[in-house]
Amino acid sequence: MSEWTSFPEIVSAKGMWLYDSKGGKMLDGVASMWCNVWGHSKSELVSEIIKQTKILQHTPLFNLTHPSAEKLSKKLLQLNPKMKSVFFSDNGSTAMEIAIKIALQYWRNVGENKKTNVATLENGYHGDTFGAMSVGYVPEFFSKFRSKLFSTIQFPVPRTVIIGSNTKKSSKEYAEYCLSKIEDKLEKDNSIAAFVMESGAQMAGGVIIYPKNFQKRISQICKKNDVLFVLDEIATGFGRLGSMIEYQSQNSTPDIVSFGKMLTGGYQTFAATLTTKKINDSFLGEFSQFKHLFHGHTYTGNPTAAALSLKNLELYKKYHLIEKIQKTSKIFKDRLDDISNLDLVGEIRHQGMVMGIELVQNKNSNKPLSSNISINKLVFEEGRKHQIYFRTLGNIIMLVPPLDISQKDLNFLIDGTISTIKSLSRKL
Amino acid sequence: MSEWTSFPEIVSAKGMWLYDSKGGKMLDGVASMWCNVWGHSKSELVSEIIKQTKILQHTPLFNLTHPSAEKLSKKLLQLNPKMKSVFFSDNGSTAMEIAIKIALQYWRNVGENKKTNVATLENGYHGDTFGAMSVGYVPEFFSKFRSKLFSTIQFPVPRTVIIGSNTKKSSKEYAEYCLSKIEDKLEKDNSIAAFVMESGAQMAGGVIIYPKNFQKRISQICKKNDVLFVLDEIATGFGRLGSMIEYQSQNSTPDIVSFGKMLTGGYQTFAATLTTKKINDSFLGEFSQFKHLFHGHTYTGNPTAAALSLKNLELYKKYHLIEKIQKTSKIFKDRLDDISNLDLVGEIRHQGMVMGIELVQNKNSNKPLSSNISINKLVFEEGRKHQIYFRTLGNIIMLVPPLDISQKDLNFLIDGTISTIKSLSRKL
Repeated sequence: MSEWTSFPEIVSAKGMWLYDSKGGKMLDGVASMWCNVWGHSKSELVSEIIKQTKILQHTPLFNLTHPSAEKLSKKLLQLNPKMKSVFFSDNGSTAMEIAIKIALQYWRNVGENKKTNVATLENGYHGDTFGAMSVGYVPEFFSKFRSKLFSTIQFPVPRTVIIGSNTKKSSKEYAEYCLSKIEDKLEKDNSIAAFVMESGAQMAGGVIIYPKNFQKRISQICKKNDVLFVLDEIATGFGRLGSMIEYQSQNSTPDIVSFGKMLTGGYQTFAATLTTKKINDSFLGEFSQFKHLFHGHTYTGNPTAAALSLKNLELYKKYHLIEKIQKTSKIFKDRLDDISNLDLVGEIRHQGMVMGIELVQNKNSNKPLSSNISINKLVFEEGRKHQIYFRTLGNIIMLVPPLDISQKDLNFLIDGTISTIKSLSRKL
Repeated sequence: MSEWTSFPEIVSAKGMWLYDSKGGKMLDGVASMWCNVWGHSKSELVSEIIKQTKILQHTPLFNLTHPSAEKLSKKLLQLNPKMKSVFFSDNGSTAMEIAIKIALQYWRNVGENKKTNVATLENGYHGDTFGAMSVGYVPEFFSKFRSKLFSTIQFPVPRTVIIGSNTKKSSKEYAEYCLSKIEDKLEKDNSIAAFVMESGAQMAGGVIIYPKNFQKRISQICKKNDVLFVLDEIATGFGRLGSMIEYQSQNSTPDIVSFGKMLTGGYQTFAATLTTKKINDSFLGEFSQFKHLFHGHTYTGNPTAAALSLKNLELYKKYHLIEKIQKTSKIFKDRLDDISNLDLVGEIRHQGMVMGIELVQNKNSNKPLSSNISINKLVFEEGRKHQIYFRTLGNIIMLVPPLDISQKDLNFLIDGTISTIKSLSRKL
């Protein structure tokens, strides 16, 4: 923390731009931590917050309900027709904690008391709370808390790997190996309650995009072996990877799925965990049977955040956002070589509205870029000079713009990224 | 969950009153789950949300800052002069997860790698996520997840106890026993990183109010034995127990303390974890030393919620709320006998703006009231007939009104409570 003596102070924001107290501005290159959909100060969303705030700021969902939560639930179930119930909470971490609790308790509710283990993919990320850290263990983030995390069964994730001294395997080739590991274990081990993974790609793990059919096959293996399939679409759903509901475009069928981040358009914290009828019904019973889920945050289902989310999802349809994303995201592909040619750039991974650019010492060595101060700080400071707000993941530059970004602004972001990497080259 | 076929739909709220879609109204007897301060639709707070929403809906605190978070931090540190830094998050559970992570990592940062255990009080509650469940284990809430919770060292909490066949010990007498247990253990065991407890009272544990000096003594025992003292003021601070900062009125000194619930006045979800300079400074270092805390939710420090919180805390001063509470809360005392005389009522515990009323089968047996359907549902439905919104904790009726309630409305709440208990008597 000593590296940072001060931070730019953002005083207002409009569209793609953040304005600071010293008259500077930056294009929001990470969608304010991957959540902003329409840019800032979108008039329909601001009006909706104001409208709802004037009527009902907050009443809880303990013994009660309210129209915003009801309408949003219906909208979410419309988008997820195989789902039956919605559990609201306050952020992605809590949405995943709830998903885990529902999955574990499901087997208790149906009398299968031995199904208590959780399977996951290596390098996954599901949030920073203890349950979320346990299922998404990233060593450099969480090693200090390891002794307090519950253990999981981890499987390798498909990515470019070097085997032995020189044999390179592509992500696709490696996927078969990963899937066979998963299939073998799930067939033999009856203790597995759930398989938890991000839907479509591992985002915080460095934009590890699953090869075609990988997620579908895991979904099938889970069904075949009576393991609940739990998906985290918090960072990847609602258009980030190019589809509205990512698990649908992956031809996979979760039993439980969580949404967050972009749910409110990126203006307020809110999340939702959805389950199928089968899961939902296992929690039904008389009070004395104690089949219900003991979980409820104070602000669960907050009316303003719910109304805002509903309006945001309506705008996706009104403005044909998914179609627009599919066009805009071609810019990433078209500009790939421009970035790839730079000497500091190693592997680049991209899909939909996200691109991860690995920084390396140089093309020949392909070793990760290293420096005395954090790469994040280096890139952030260089980026500011080119009017871009960056937040890297270690040595990976993340381009995660607001989904509704124009082609012109996306080109500005990519130009700024190239200039930033070139300046870095000169500095290091 | 089968018990509930429908829920009242709240369409608007003003002052102490919730209005439903069928023309009914209820007085908000639980401050919308213990968070509402001024009643609903308080004009200054609504205006503040609207004002901030028009300027800046959200930018994150990753590499950046903004005026609302800065000003609110300063205000919180003013109220907590022995504290040095503020970590914002999205709800009470996350605020406590952060407190636990900071406490555990502190000892790593200063090179004391063997201090890894957490001590707590039995019957505590700190939230529903896995870390929060671990330090606040309530068996009936969390038994289904026990195998996934990390273990803690638990000490008994002072309360009225029956020892042997007939010897009744008061909470105050029992406190000495609890304290000696704590002192013995902390003196002998060098592995304890932190002692985590609610400040002032265990709220979700059934309004277990600590006897005088109990918290102060634990604070002293912790200091003497080099154990971090971590307090949870989420439900008890900001006036609920009659003081602005509860740990100050308990003459105790935490190393880490969390606030939530009433922080925003009860309108949006938000929380804060504060630490001393000693703790803060242990996290300073070069990036390569990895002393920083890996924790950050997407909406950490949301500008609207921060501006709202600041305005809310300003109103405490403007309207002399703490002084008002001290007057209003006398009504609870004055009306104690009216409630206590009812045959279904066992022990009553109250302080400041909270009262817990234990329902028993009858005064002679003193056994907890039991029924086929949940007591919560029974009381809620009877309460509605008397225009009160109740949410019980098991067989404990909780009176937790908005802090700014008038004496007249508080009498209405108590009258409605008495009528509700009488109706229950006739029904059972």
